[in-house]
Amino acid sequence: MDKNLRFAVLGGGSWATAIVKMLTENLQKITWYMRNEDAIDHIRTQKHNPNYLSSVEFNLDQLVLTADIDSAVKNNDILIFAIPSAFLASELKKLTTSLEDKIIFSAIKGIVPETGLIVGEHFHNVYKIPFENIGVLTGPCHAEEVALERLSYLTIASGDKAKAELVANSLKSDYIKTKISDDIIGTEYAAMLKNIYAIAAGIFHGLGYGDNFQSVLMSNSIREMKRYIKRVHKMKRNINNSAYLGDLLVTGYSTFSRNRMFGNMIGKGYTVKSAMMEMSMVAEGYYATKSAYELKSGFKSKVQTPIINAVYDVLYLNKNARKTFAELTNKID
Amino acid sequence: MDKNLRFAVLGGGSWATAIVKMLTENLQKITWYMRNEDAIDHIRTQKHNPNYLSSVEFNLDQLVLTADIDSAVKNNDILIFAIPSAFLASELKKLTTSLEDKIIFSAIKGIVPETGLIVGEHFHNVYKIPFENIGVLTGPCHAEEVALERLSYLTIASGDKAKAELVANSLKSDYIKTKISDDIIGTEYAAMLKNIYAIAAGIFHGLGYGDNFQSVLMSNSIREMKRYIKRVHKMKRNINNSAYLGDLLVTGYSTFSRNRMFGNMIGKGYTVKSAMMEMSMVAEGYYATKSAYELKSGFKSKVQTPIINAVYDVLYLNKNARKTFAELTNKID
Repeated sequence: MDKNLRFAVLGGGSWATAIVKMLTENLQKITWYMRNEDAIDHIRTQKHNPNYLSSVEFNLDQLVLTADIDSAVKNNDILIFAIPSAFLASELKKLTTSLEDKIIFSAIKGIVPETGLIVGEHFHNVYKIPFENIGVLTGPCHAEEVALERLSYLTIASGDKAKAELVANSLKSDYIKTKISDDIIGTEYAAMLKNIYAIAAGIFHGLGYGDNFQSVLMSNSIREMKRYIKRVHKMKRNINNSAYLGDLLVTGYSTFSRNRMFGNMIGKGYTVKSAMMEMSMVAEGYYATKSAYELKSGFKSKVQTPIINAVYDVLYLNKNARKTFAELTNKID
Repeated sequence: MDKNLRFAVLGGGSWATAIVKMLTENLQKITWYMRNEDAIDHIRTQKHNPNYLSSVEFNLDQLVLTADIDSAVKNNDILIFAIPSAFLASELKKLTTSLEDKIIFSAIKGIVPETGLIVGEHFHNVYKIPFENIGVLTGPCHAEEVALERLSYLTIASGDKAKAELVANSLKSDYIKTKISDDIIGTEYAAMLKNIYAIAAGIFHGLGYGDNFQSVLMSNSIREMKRYIKRVHKMKRNINNSAYLGDLLVTGYSTFSRNRMFGNMIGKGYTVKSAMMEMSMVAEGYYATKSAYELKSGFKSKVQTPIINAVYDVLYLNKNARKTFAELTNKID
């Protein structure tokens, strides 16, 4: 594998900022694309992203900052996408240059709303990127703790082991340990599904359920996730590895998770619309719930997903959260 | 199974108090043994345990309170032990009546220090109680949330399904759901081992590691627990069920867990002795660490337990916590 492959990170949010920080520990140059030109100007003068992880100071010599997605794609070999899934399709539509021969890693934990696909599948189906050129970068990892250089573990999955290793080696440092995996489908589904379980955790919390119950919910969530992913892509995987169980726990137990916060508001009686307005954003898990629910109805053999079903009923069928979730407690153990 | 079997709860702590409360939802009479006569007097006049879960008010007509362990044993059929494991052997030595033909359930999450055995094995080996008359009552369940009547799930394990069902039916209510299991060895080892992992979580927290790392630790803990229990008693079990994973999570993520608190003090630089003095008690996991470590050295084939080893090294070999736990981060993923 050519060690001189050029990296670009696409996205201006906290996770994109954390990834750029990690790469600066190892690479001399990183292209960083974001659409917000004011933020780019701010980084150029103040050396930090004004909107996210602003405590992280960058060495400008290492960064090629650009608001031109075409140049970011054209001039680089490995593209790490960290754009919120809700904006991915519209960002990609701006492209006039080809993605052919690019190595694409997704650091996006969600579903592309326009196609209902996880990001790797979206690139594969819509842009004909072969799976050996697709990878996934997954946690458990809050970006905020990367900023603080608190020890975190990443899993880098790719159909091509050499590519996973190359990206892993470019990310690891004193405070980042990496592990590689060949389960690109499973790790990405786990990252997506965990947001639904975080919404469920938030709803139960908002309804007044306690810590004893939360642990039962997480125990049932990981079993449900295992069943679900097995239907999507059957292969030998240990669902208790960090990329699956760890990622579920860091989100489900975090009071900072936007998905859990969104669920909490629903549990406290907000409508879906008012919770979204209050947060002035859409939690990734909102889309994930619909996609996961619809996808599973196409499975050849049925899979029991009482938790996903309950979240779907509340978010999309307007069912009463208190009643729906009380019924859910009888379907889990 | 005779539904008129008489129940006694042995112990005066918070978990014993919670169990008595749960039983009062279903049974007309419960014998409650505790050695503290002042506490018994207080309950007789004030209707609540002065020392634990004092918000729980009892109907005295349902309670046969006694400080005489012989009468509690002699007059009852099902004995639920909720005495701290450190005091169990000395309490049992007081007995002049036989345990023969008694049905014994352990609600004790620990190791009997004198024999290094889990409680079920202690009763089996020392008192010759057959395994079909032994059971385990396990969480995930903080007693404090039972007092608040927050929904909690218990697992009742016994070699004899009918006995597990009888006890489960005596405990369940609007706020308690129960599940039965035949894995008396595995559930009890899980309840014991989780305290060691809670100490590890506390040490890492005390050393300044964050939430990302905590989720990686829990992911590794459940895998280590699975390997360990498989060596002790191989049978088909889903380690992600509430009695194993749920119990680990409720303890590992709880800032109220005494084991986690003990670890946290070690991580912050207290010596083992000063942490114990500060807490004015010994965390169950302290004994569990030694027993689990010594027991595994007798396993025919080796089992990898880097987390137990690190906790043992710090607690019993006086190794430096910061250095030992930094090394541990290289042995987990």
